[in-house]
Amino acid sequence: MDQFTSEAGELLVGGIPLGRLLARVGQTPFYAYDRELLTRRSKELRDALPKGIKIHYAMKANPMPAVVGHMARLVDGIDVASAQELQVALDCGADPREISFAGPGKRHEELRQAVAAGILINIESFREVNELGAIRQASGWPVRVAVRVNPDFELKSSGMKMGGGPKQFGVDAEQVPELLAAIGQAGLAFEGFHLFAGSQNLRPEAIVEAQRKSFELALRLAEHAPSPVRFLNLGGGFGIPYFPGEQRIDLSAIADNLAAIQREAAEKMPDAEIVIELGRYLVGEAGIYVSRIIDRKVSRGHTYLVTDGGLHHHLSASGNFGQVIRKNYPVSIGNRMNDANAGPVSVVGPLCTPLDILADRMNLPDAQPGDLVVVYQSGAYGATASPRGFLSHPDLVEVLV
Amino acid sequence: MDQFTSEAGELLVGGIPLGRLLARVGQTPFYAYDRELLTRRSKELRDALPKGIKIHYAMKANPMPAVVGHMARLVDGIDVASAQELQVALDCGADPREISFAGPGKRHEELRQAVAAGILINIESFREVNELGAIRQASGWPVRVAVRVNPDFELKSSGMKMGGGPKQFGVDAEQVPELLAAIGQAGLAFEGFHLFAGSQNLRPEAIVEAQRKSFELALRLAEHAPSPVRFLNLGGGFGIPYFPGEQRIDLSAIADNLAAIQREAAEKMPDAEIVIELGRYLVGEAGIYVSRIIDRKVSRGHTYLVTDGGLHHHLSASGNFGQVIRKNYPVSIGNRMNDANAGPVSVVGPLCTPLDILADRMNLPDAQPGDLVVVYQSGAYGATASPRGFLSHPDLVEVLV
Repeated sequence: MDQFTSEAGELLVGGIPLGRLLARVGQTPFYAYDRELLTRRSKELRDALPKGIKIHYAMKANPMPAVVGHMARLVDGIDVASAQELQVALDCGADPREISFAGPGKRHEELRQAVAAGILINIESFREVNELGAIRQASGWPVRVAVRVNPDFELKSSGMKMGGGPKQFGVDAEQVPELLAAIGQAGLAFEGFHLFAGSQNLRPEAIVEAQRKSFELALRLAEHAPSPVRFLNLGGGFGIPYFPGEQRIDLSAIADNLAAIQREAAEKMPDAEIVIELGRYLVGEAGIYVSRIIDRKVSRGHTYLVTDGGLHHHLSASGNFGQVIRKNYPVSIGNRMNDANAGPVSVVGPLCTPLDILADRMNLPDAQPGDLVVVYQSGAYGATASPRGFLSHPDLVEVLV
Repeated sequence: MDQFTSEAGELLVGGIPLGRLLARVGQTPFYAYDRELLTRRSKELRDALPKGIKIHYAMKANPMPAVVGHMARLVDGIDVASAQELQVALDCGADPREISFAGPGKRHEELRQAVAAGILINIESFREVNELGAIRQASGWPVRVAVRVNPDFELKSSGMKMGGGPKQFGVDAEQVPELLAAIGQAGLAFEGFHLFAGSQNLRPEAIVEAQRKSFELALRLAEHAPSPVRFLNLGGGFGIPYFPGEQRIDLSAIADNLAAIQREAAEKMPDAEIVIELGRYLVGEAGIYVSRIIDRKVSRGHTYLVTDGGLHHHLSASGNFGQVIRKNYPVSIGNRMNDANAGPVSVVGPLCTPLDILADRMNLPDAQPGDLVVVYQSGAYGATASPRGFLSHPDLVEVLV
């Protein structure tokens, strides 16, 4: 993974050799996120995209407060998925005017918290219009809303499809005119649309097509809006490479397309800020998960490295979080970066389940108890997307370096 | 699910109507475990098995302290998978003589804690023999050990195979004689063998075959033991029905087989206690997961019930924990038990991911916001086997009723 370098056989994280970082952290397992890599990715993205395109960070990808605080200074807004994420974003100094909130089952209390905070709420059902109308009446506070649209098309080649066909997300495009009328009647402050067709996509042409169709759909829907569109979130879906043969996504076609959309919007939707919302793409490659080898066992000719980390901390890397076919995340022995590979071994965790596997028959250097196993591409959907209480092993630590 | 009854349209848990239980608990989502069902299952199992067969509870299935405390009074021993599970078992009053500890990556500190507690340690590698020898030398405390054997056969038709072929669990049967010699030389107190071929098996004939082969393997290995076998854990693997068409396992063939093993052991391994170790089978059917419907949405003709609970609390029910093909757990509307089904709906959670689904196109009564969705067969591998921090929604509560 070329975003990380090494020195004298040790992986460097934020310029610190892994062994010294471990001494500073005080325990394995831990996640480390590289501040400089976060900054670099955000800057590269901003340089690649047309000026004026707004970048939002979807903090569900990595809600560690230090990460959110760092990202808040790099991006133009934060997208939250729960009231607790909202609290973290506010604590981190994010501007409430630039926070938006999406989720298919927002509770009344959550909606009230969001209104009190003054953030933008992506409405996902007729019920939410009613609840927000009641909150407005009771409190007198303005209620800023956008409409999350379930488009009438899908993002092709996505890891996860989140639009098209029947979905729990957003409101079907064909119901949106009626919803917009209800928003006007309820006295909510309409600001725009949120369209999110899918995630973890490595094919620029599919993203281009989805953004183009999303924009055209937004133009059609805007005719029914009670006020001009000021906010147009075209979603994200930019993937990162996890598995052999996958390449980083080429942004040039996406940038050209966004520039064309911008030009058209300047004429047809002149008040609209165009936003893209990214989580994994911004933080995923900046993080590693580090565990220590506890045992090395040979069973019927096959070598197992048993570590103190595993599925309970990194469910995705174990292949048990939405994957149909398990593939290995990139893995190295972080204190033997100069050693040649010595043959295929499996890296497993300490849990009493055959699901607890970090690397299956992977070519790695000859490693021994005490050595450090590094799982790359672990900055998104790692620590919080894992069953940390399972089997009651020691919890992980997260550091931003 | 016939283990739970209802009254006036409400599900009863421990004799308490669900609405009243909710008022007592104070929030959704929650897990409720029925004390009486735990007791009943343990008693039925004891009645079905030959007298003298010892039953151990593998607390990783459900480590809630109140559940472990209840189970400790019903079974003959507790199996732990980590030092923290050991602390809970001891706090719950389990007798250290009847606690055993298994896991492929036991750390030195964990092993020392286990030795200090005086429990039985299932050795899974040559390294553990060395570590335990050093702990014995340094502390002078006796070190009670059994050998976890990776058998030379598999448990057929298991949900998870945990023996046969190369495995991270235990020591290959063919290496056990050498391991036994090392145990003797290190001055560890050998007590017996642990053989665990697989889990979640609904075919009695496969379990019978595995137990028979495990016993025969133990007899062969015992010839190399430094002292007579006093403990013989033949594993568990009894499944529970989750999906349409699955039936509860018939124990009669297993009981007959265990009786035959007992008779043979009385002659060939006269000091041995024969133990079976069960987790899911003892607790899985006694638990439910309860969430509240927040929204009801119709998208392109399909109805979604959006609840405040989901994947973050019940990963297994969402189909994302080791399942290759997602199937629905049994689900009901717990406050509409007398209502007829009104057609297929999907029950989803509040997370912004299409993975967050509790029931896919299931026939359920007509349900509305405020109603309670009950997921059955949730007493094992629920609360602790789920990514509870994912998207920072409110945490669950667990109650034993």
